[in-house]
Amino acid sequence: MENNNSPFEENIRKIKVPVFKRFLSNSKLAPLSFEPTGKTLETKNSAAVAKAFTEVVGASSNKLLSGSKTNKKPAKGKRVAVLFSGGPAAGGHNVIAGLKAVLGKNNTLLGVKAGPKGLLEGDLFKITDEAVKHIMNTGGFDFLGSDRTKIKTKDQFQKVKNVCENNKLDAIVIIGGDDSNTNAAVLAEHLYGKVQVIGVPKTIDGDLQVGDLLPVSFGFDTATKIYSEMVGNILQDTPSSRKYWHFIKLMGRAASHVALEVALQTRPPVCLISEEIAQMRSSLGEIIDSIARIVVARAKKKINHGVVLIPEGIVEFIPEMNVLISELNDALSHYDRKEAVSHISAAGAQLFRSLPEYIQKMLLAERDAHGNLQVSLIPTERLIIDMVARRVKEIDPDVKFNTLNHFFGYEGRCGAPSLFDAAYTYNLGLIAGSLILDGRTGYMAALTDLDKGGKALGIPLTGLIHVERRHGKDEMVIEKALVRTDSPAFKFFASRREDWANEDRFTSPGPRQLWGPTAKQVPISVALNQGYKSLKFTL
Amino acid sequence: MENNNSPFEENIRKIKVPVFKRFLSNSKLAPLSFEPTGKTLETKNSAAVAKAFTEVVGASSNKLLSGSKTNKKPAKGKRVAVLFSGGPAAGGHNVIAGLKAVLGKNNTLLGVKAGPKGLLEGDLFKITDEAVKHIMNTGGFDFLGSDRTKIKTKDQFQKVKNVCENNKLDAIVIIGGDDSNTNAAVLAEHLYGKVQVIGVPKTIDGDLQVGDLLPVSFGFDTATKIYSEMVGNILQDTPSSRKYWHFIKLMGRAASHVALEVALQTRPPVCLISEEIAQMRSSLGEIIDSIARIVVARAKKKINHGVVLIPEGIVEFIPEMNVLISELNDALSHYDRKEAVSHISAAGAQLFRSLPEYIQKMLLAERDAHGNLQVSLIPTERLIIDMVARRVKEIDPDVKFNTLNHFFGYEGRCGAPSLFDAAYTYNLGLIAGSLILDGRTGYMAALTDLDKGGKALGIPLTGLIHVERRHGKDEMVIEKALVRTDSPAFKFFASRREDWANEDRFTSPGPRQLWGPTAKQVPISVALNQGYKSLKFTL
Repeated sequence: MENNNSPFEENIRKIKVPVFKRFLSNSKLAPLSFEPTGKTLETKNSAAVAKAFTEVVGASSNKLLSGSKTNKKPAKGKRVAVLFSGGPAAGGHNVIAGLKAVLGKNNTLLGVKAGPKGLLEGDLFKITDEAVKHIMNTGGFDFLGSDRTKIKTKDQFQKVKNVCENNKLDAIVIIGGDDSNTNAAVLAEHLYGKVQVIGVPKTIDGDLQVGDLLPVSFGFDTATKIYSEMVGNILQDTPSSRKYWHFIKLMGRAASHVALEVALQTRPPVCLISEEIAQMRSSLGEIIDSIARIVVARAKKKINHGVVLIPEGIVEFIPEMNVLISELNDALSHYDRKEAVSHISAAGAQLFRSLPEYIQKMLLAERDAHGNLQVSLIPTERLIIDMVARRVKEIDPDVKFNTLNHFFGYEGRCGAPSLFDAAYTYNLGLIAGSLILDGRTGYMAALTDLDKGGKALGIPLTGLIHVERRHGKDEMVIEKALVRTDSPAFKFFASRREDWANEDRFTSPGPRQLWGPTAKQVPISVALNQGYKSLKFTL
Repeated sequence: MENNNSPFEENIRKIKVPVFKRFLSNSKLAPLSFEPTGKTLETKNSAAVAKAFTEVVGASSNKLLSGSKTNKKPAKGKRVAVLFSGGPAAGGHNVIAGLKAVLGKNNTLLGVKAGPKGLLEGDLFKITDEAVKHIMNTGGFDFLGSDRTKIKTKDQFQKVKNVCENNKLDAIVIIGGDDSNTNAAVLAEHLYGKVQVIGVPKTIDGDLQVGDLLPVSFGFDTATKIYSEMVGNILQDTPSSRKYWHFIKLMGRAASHVALEVALQTRPPVCLISEEIAQMRSSLGEIIDSIARIVVARAKKKINHGVVLIPEGIVEFIPEMNVLISELNDALSHYDRKEAVSHISAAGAQLFRSLPEYIQKMLLAERDAHGNLQVSLIPTERLIIDMVARRVKEIDPDVKFNTLNHFFGYEGRCGAPSLFDAAYTYNLGLIAGSLILDGRTGYMAALTDLDKGGKALGIPLTGLIHVERRHGKDEMVIEKALVRTDSPAFKFFASRREDWANEDRFTSPGPRQLWGPTAKQVPISVALNQGYKSLKFTL
């Protein structure tokens, strides 16, 4: 019974993922051609962006492209390179499979090893049909590897140009998140007229979204399905064991899409949403108090258990914590640790004294080379557990409050793709390849209308770029999509959470299924935000 | 699209699990009758056990029962209570469903709330067909709840007797691990002639096994499939991100079955097996050195990543650690913390000094009420990471060694059962009910020959009981089944691990599937140990 692969891997490779019908011409796969739609994308900084990206914006006018017809005269002889950038996400391998399929025998697909760094080093190899069969529907980015190098210096651009020339590249496909797609736009501008550059939207965090043009980045569905199963299992454990409150931190530094989706999938008693906290300007004390009151109210009904979901980046969204940290950064540059707290604002000092001692120590101790505290080092779930425990004791000393904590992160990035991510990414690969064979550059491949057969789009990357203050400098970047408190998904959550806190209302979403009646499920937050009538996708 | 249950839960309830053919009489479900086989079970303490369990051993003679024929005259009017004992495991709800089905309309099934404690308190309710439909194939023990109360005092036995009389009980089914099944035997003896007691083998740890009579306890398959998916995902992450060694602690205090099964499912570079360490009398330094050498050897091949699996209870299996801890316990009862180390053996003192400072502090600081260190408080994975890091630096200071640590535990106990656990537990329920309707007491329900249609057994609990020193007293208990280094599963692992350490050989077992071609998979260690020719079960 020994085999190099698990029975699961042997079988998923054989799954034929659904393909957007327009790609089939006489039941054969063929690339699409694209036409500009009436829609132009813009940000508040579009004028400045047009000046910085003269070539790309000049060619695209930031017009959205729609692909609905077979390309009768697709380009031939193109040499296309593909690379992964940033953290892995499920479905990356299927983007490559889609690219390979649509480029067909008349073009060449090359893989770049180990991300943007591999592009600078010219580490490329030819991708064969055999290799694609092997990676089809599998998780991870291990076929190519990935890294987080940003290509931004003159020297780096020259290196890329040399590599393109040496390898006779006609196009590069960059599979990555918001920053990697910004990088794709920058490269498209620098290589304009020589090498086309197309982006593919990847990130498990879900913060690369564009309204109804880009419902979700790939990898989000698989990651949230993995986390949701784990959270659902733990929720199911709580009334079985009847003694623990589990505090679960979920990956996602910049936005709370992951936490929101997992909450919609599982219905826990408490889920914090960073963006709401920032918008309401909630204090840490208020957040702690609201959790403690739920703990006490449930205890009165003899429910001494529950689950609290915490987005990884929450501390950075609590306004008073940011103020405190920056006041301490300032004070510590003038005074020593013992004196620093007496040189910050009264409100800051009060907040400081309300924190557990080990957090106080951290806030005074660790500074990076620039004199800043690395907020990511604060053990968020421990901080919240300890403060809630203290508050519960203040409200009612008799309440039993036993806690456990978890962090779900890395286990969600490299799982085998859900059927949704498998199909979505294969089709994104087909679209990215079609954009190349249609001669386009500076676009991101997108697929919408997932509930009614799909719609292929080319989103002009420069139409998404705005100016943002980063590390004390203005930079032109694609804006991160945060959770909006006026979105249907958030409103749905907000209208139910009191009920979920009052009684056990959890559901167990179970492990994602590649076969059977539940295989075709899309993320609930995506279905709500896009107004889909069902959770099933149709392509 | 709102619904009280996830689409997954809605659909799994409808799955008809395979049933052992002998239960079908004219395609209707009917209980089995049992016959003694030629096989008698015994331990080294059987004579003493026979004296302590005169009634039960007198009736059973510790003979194994086999159920292969329809019971033509099953008992009627029986009132049967069922309870969960100990930590949850996937499939518990299906045991109840199987019991309910086989008891049928002629008998009554009662649920005991919140485990043995609920039995003492008489917290019982009638289980309806409607309720069973709702819990079918779902995870968790939440339908009844569970607890860890041991019934052992005279007062407790009297309470149970009263509850049995008040509720007119004819039988009790105890769903639990080794200790709970010991408790079932004790209750069977105390209630002999009045109330039958039947045990059902549950534990995710897999340490309740009886050679070819009980291939595995229920819940083990689901838990290890859940952990294996997570470990497989992280393994897949390692060559994608190319920068981390992940140290993963797996639930399972007393035995390493979980770690071994997960290793067989995923093929990581390193998996520690506690029983092997105890048997080889490995020192902590040797264990650390062997991991460090693998890290260095891989780094030489530019593989700066990997996974190390660690069974939760490992520290308790390292002989010299046990010696050190007991020496320190002694020394601390005579000397204060500063002096204690100078009053232990030279070997102990040397080991002590080799440990990271925070572990030294722990070893001196925390003692329970009996003056003993709680070994479970030692942060095993941190200890191993820190010592490996130090050793790697000694061997080759240039080796990159970035680490992350994880603990997979609670998320594996309450997942929806795998198809194996769903079918296995339903059939165990059918067998437990059949034993009751056949008038038996003091048996554990068992199902073997899972690769060729199944075989229903009644294992005399007293035939498994031996005498063990616990907390300084001799106690009669069912022996925990540890990993045997001469078992086919261990030998298979041992013959491959060097290869798995040399190169990335991992496989990703993926999420467990309830539908499709891979749904019927049994644990690999069970298939190997039982000599099954395939990983698929057939019932």
